[in-house]
Amino acid sequence: MDDRLIKQMDFILEVDKIKNITRQTYLSDGKRKENDAEHSWHLALMAVLLREHANEELDLVKVMTMVLIHDIVEIDAGDTYAYDDAGNTTKREREVRAANRIFGLLPEDQGDMCKELWEEFELAKTPEAKFAHTLDNFQPLMLNNAADGKSWREHEVKKSQVMKRNEHTGEGSRVIRSYMQQLIDKNVECGNLKNE
Amino acid sequence: MDDRLIKQMDFILEVDKIKNITRQTYLSDGKRKENDAEHSWHLALMAVLLREHANEELDLVKVMTMVLIHDIVEIDAGDTYAYDDAGNTTKREREVRAANRIFGLLPEDQGDMCKELWEEFELAKTPEAKFAHTLDNFQPLMLNNAADGKSWREHEVKKSQVMKRNEHTGEGSRVIRSYMQQLIDKNVECGNLKNE
Ligand SMILES: [Ca+2]
Repeated sequence: MDDRLIKQMDFILEVDKIKNITRQTYLSDGKRKENDAEHSWHLALMAVLLREHANEELDLVKVMTMVLIHDIVEIDAGDTYAYDDAGNTTKREREVRAANRIFGLLPEDQGDMCKELWEEFELAKTPEAKFAHTLDNFQPLMLNNAADGKSWREHEVKKSQVMKRNEHTGEGSRVIRSYMQQLIDKNVECGNLKNE
Repeated sequence: MDDRLIKQMDFILEVDKIKNITRQTYLSDGKRKENDAEHSWHLALMAVLLREHANEELDLVKVMTMVLIHDIVEIDAGDTYAYDDAGNTTKREREVRAANRIFGLLPEDQGDMCKELWEEFELAKTPEAKFAHTLDNFQPLMLNNAADGKSWREHEVKKSQVMKRNEHTGEGSRVIRSYMQQLIDKNVECGNLKNE
């Protein structure tokens, strides 16, 4: 068997571990928290169905691949909750080390492609990366709203924190950002988000 | 808010339920069974990384979208284990009804697109559908091999059943099918698959 196939298979098996990386967001039924594989599946499907709402023309394969791999670094680095300030200080360093190890399992061209795509996502400058961030911010908000704000209430999240986190979300899609605002306002009104 | 966006959002929320559809395959660590969202995430990423091993040229967005949605019907119809003969008799009817209801939540053009893509997958005639089936058959075999045949042993699966199930797997990729044969032979040798 050729070396290239072995490397691909090693990577594909290694990333199975992402199914055990638990996020802070509950599924819509509120019964358990979702994991990174489930979250990434959801984003890739949303990319297909919601691309018409992107502000800019984009390369769909690129967005889909980007969201499929954007959380793989968390296999080593763990999930850092959006509103955990301490964790977010060391996040970058931990994630770069993880990207080098995990994407480094692939044949060099594919490893480089994945690392570049992940960096592109992190920088959030291209149309694809901006749209991927819109989806990445929208999906947990949608689930939180469906689960009656369970995760927000547990963490006593404030409206101001959600607004700050979504400062740039409209850069990927104004339509989706405006839909999100309706959900935010509704959840402030019913007390799931603190009005601060 | 426009009707189109409402329909898209309804569908995107509804399919969250796929995260609760449990398959018979264990994760590579053998600790729990995987669900359809995790499985579909894995297939979409494999489509990107393994497409070079497909027998025919293919449209990557089409393969990726196909594998992302191929199990959505199981939200209503349930997962039918590959080696459950009784369940497989009624599977088609249950799944068609599910496809009509669930994809019917989307705006008509997108609902039709998804239904057609799902039917194309089921028919397994186009290069994209053949490759999607290769991945769909390979991924659980890879996990079963990693989990030391746990699911095969629980169901007392025979080599002949695995061979029959993979009769057409080589039509999508001879390279992947041949890699699979190595895994099958290894698992027959160590007793994870019955040599019958
Ligand atoms: Ca299935």
